[in-house]
Amino acid sequence: MQTLQVRTPSHAYPIHIGKGLLADFSLFAPHIGKKAAIVTNTTVSALYAGALEKLLRDNGVETFSIVLADGEAHKNHQSLLQIYDALLAHRADRKTAVVALGGGVIGDTAGFAAATYQRGVPLIQIPTTLLSQVDSSVGGKTAVNHPLGKNMIGAFYQPQAVIADLDTLTTLPEREFSAGMAEVVKYALLGDAAFLAWLEENIGGIMRQDADLLAQTVAHCCQMKADIVAQDETEQGIRAHLNLGHTFGHAIEAEMGYGNWLHGEAVAAGMVLAAELSRVQGCLNAGEVARVSALLRAAALPVVPPEFPFERWLAHMRHDKKVQNGQMRFVTLRRLGEAQVSVLDDENLLRQVLSA
Amino acid sequence: MQTLQVRTPSHAYPIHIGKGLLADFSLFAPHIGKKAAIVTNTTVSALYAGALEKLLRDNGVETFSIVLADGEAHKNHQSLLQIYDALLAHRADRKTAVVALGGGVIGDTAGFAAATYQRGVPLIQIPTTLLSQVDSSVGGKTAVNHPLGKNMIGAFYQPQAVIADLDTLTTLPEREFSAGMAEVVKYALLGDAAFLAWLEENIGGIMRQDADLLAQTVAHCCQMKADIVAQDETEQGIRAHLNLGHTFGHAIEAEMGYGNWLHGEAVAAGMVLAAELSRVQGCLNAGEVARVSALLRAAALPVVPPEFPFERWLAHMRHDKKVQNGQMRFVTLRRLGEAQVSVLDDENLLRQVLSA
Ligand SMILES: NC(=O)c1ccc[n+]([C@@H]2O[C@H](COP(=O)([O-])OP(=O)(O)OC[C@H]3O[C@@H](n4cnc5c(N)ncnc54)[C@H](O)[C@@H]3O)[C@@H](O)[C@H]2O)c1
Ligand SMILES: NC(=O)c1ccc[n+]([C@@H]2O[C@H](COP(=O)([O-])OP(=O)(O)OC[C@H]3O[C@@H](n4cnc5c(N)ncnc54)[C@H](O)[C@@H]3O)[C@@H](O)[C@H]2O)c1
Ligand SMILES: [Zn+2]
Ligand SMILES: [Zn+2]
Repeated sequence: MQTLQVRTPSHAYPIHIGKGLLADFSLFAPHIGKKAAIVTNTTVSALYAGALEKLLRDNGVETFSIVLADGEAHKNHQSLLQIYDALLAHRADRKTAVVALGGGVIGDTAGFAAATYQRGVPLIQIPTTLLSQVDSSVGGKTAVNHPLGKNMIGAFYQPQAVIADLDTLTTLPEREFSAGMAEVVKYALLGDAAFLAWLEENIGGIMRQDADLLAQTVAHCCQMKADIVAQDETEQGIRAHLNLGHTFGHAIEAEMGYGNWLHGEAVAAGMVLAAELSRVQGCLNAGEVARVSALLRAAALPVVPPEFPFERWLAHMRHDKKVQNGQMRFVTLRRLGEAQVSVLDDENLLRQVLSA
Repeated sequence: MQTLQVRTPSHAYPIHIGKGLLADFSLFAPHIGKKAAIVTNTTVSALYAGALEKLLRDNGVETFSIVLADGEAHKNHQSLLQIYDALLAHRADRKTAVVALGGGVIGDTAGFAAATYQRGVPLIQIPTTLLSQVDSSVGGKTAVNHPLGKNMIGAFYQPQAVIADLDTLTTLPEREFSAGMAEVVKYALLGDAAFLAWLEENIGGIMRQDADLLAQTVAHCCQMKADIVAQDETEQGIRAHLNLGHTFGHAIEAEMGYGNWLHGEAVAAGMVLAAELSRVQGCLNAGEVARVSALLRAAALPVVPPEFPFERWLAHMRHDKKVQNGQMRFVTLRRLGEAQVSVLDDENLLRQVLSA
């Protein structure tokens, strides 16, 4: 097991990464009181909730589960109300821990519920998808979707601990594993050249879920995210770089209907568009854009966005959270390994990228 | 005009108190960008929204109003969704300020919307009731109600500024003015003996809304609240004292149906119960309890709770946010002017107080 520390102005917490962690009560003990609510979904519940409930109960923690419907379509106010209702029905109080057991959808929804139930109760993140282990469980962004925009309602709320058990990835569908790799590639494009090269070299082994390579990958990404979050908890600056590919990606998800394109798939195609925008801006060359595509393809990810009218792209992107005082902003690459936020005042650049 | 400063770990902001403030753009200018959403209700909108909209527009701020139904019954998720929908429809972004124009219901609801829309946008509180000027607009507690409990869903979120225009109190119904006085009396019971004596002496003039006395009252209460919040932003300790009378009060509000007993009225009766509990605990004497009642009566407030079965009191109070690991906790008075939090393990004490 490896343990990293996330230090934010609001508090510090550990990320544990390894195998067999869901059977280790000592990781939970410091963060859990007399009562805990496990928030999960129908799929993950069938696989892991029973063992976790038993672990907690055997150690004297009164436990109840809140099982949401599975899918991005349920990352909404209705699921939130389901969680609140259950917390109140079980007389959860300010010391009752919320344990988010699942992928990013569960982490974001349960995290927002924990942030707002009685103005905040302890939260433990147990990410069970690659995407949530390398990205969404770390850093304290929580949210639900609104019919007019993804992640529109949320809070910054740090967990007490993140427990990433690599064993859970064995049951993950391949398509979901690939989707998580999109965020891994994102870190490689944002960070040091050495990690990008290492990833290109080892992508085959990682895709076969070689245990050591996987552990290294998750730990490296978590460390990068932890460093960025420590510098900028509430996304006033550098944290925005983590949105590389996401402005385009969110537009794809919204246009295609949440869940039809997976988040990671949409972000993969979005990163190619961001790379292309960086090329049009004169920062990357065509070979570098091709290198981005090749790596994503090696992770079995789409690199071409679905086709829909330019006006629809604009309509979605105008709702993006990076819009400020009405101006659209994009994360682009100054070079491979270094991102920047550009204000886009020339819609034609965008039209060019999207029609290519 | 007087200006106080609230300093919390998360940030510092001014409270402006005086007459004619709603016509002074300089108070808004530092906190407002290109666009602002005024959140108000049908009653307050008719009285003050027009002038405020004009002030902002004349100064180049694009403005739109979100008018909620009036009343505690509408401090709920439905109003919240109404605000989110309107913010998205008007393409509000992270720099768009939410201006809460109204009493505590508007402040709490709009405040929570501002805390959670896109994970937080700037918030300006313009309290227009006595209760909201002396209490709810300061300190960053925001919330909406859940059918199973008051203020159950919320966040700690500090405004950029509080602008308390005393002129708005002239249109406030007498009953609402009295309800605000309950919180004023609360500060007197929590704080120094001098303020309690001053209040007993001047209660007549304050009830007649003498301008100077009123300004002094609001400023003193805001200062007390600011000091407490500065010490304890997220209610880990001393801030809980501000809940004097509120555990009983919330039970009354919930049992009678939110809005039938005003919050301040319920808190007034609740403070008499808290004083009585303090007497049963051996802290106050009967004369001191009578002094509390007399002051509340002078403010035209109820001092006897409605009658309902003990089990109903318990049922409501078990949902209180001060419950920790299942134990009920009450704010009581060690003496007039000094509060404490007591864990109540003997239900009989409670039964005795409630049946008296
Ligand atoms: N908060 C953040 O910082 C952040 C960052 C990135 C993404 N996100 C959010 O994360 C979400 C995507 O997360 P995701 O990709 O984990 O999707 P997800 O939570 O929907 O999980 C994907 C699918 O895998 C299933 N699953 C989960 N764990 C499993 C396991 N161990 N075995 C078998 N099946 C399993 C789920 O039930 C689901 O059907 C999006 O809503 C996105 O907005 C948030
Ligand atoms: N956040 C906190 O720290 C905190 C503290 C105390 C109370 N509260 C909350 O505050 C709420 C009570 O606030 P309230 O007493 O202001 O009630 P309120 O907001 O319902 O206002 C009372 C009534 O007066 C009307 N009104 C408001 N301003 C007016 C004006 N200037 N002229 C004429 N009518 C006016 C309103 O429309 C309403 O009908 C409760 O929900 C309570 O939980 C919050
Ligand atoms: Zn992502
Ligand atoms: Zn109150």
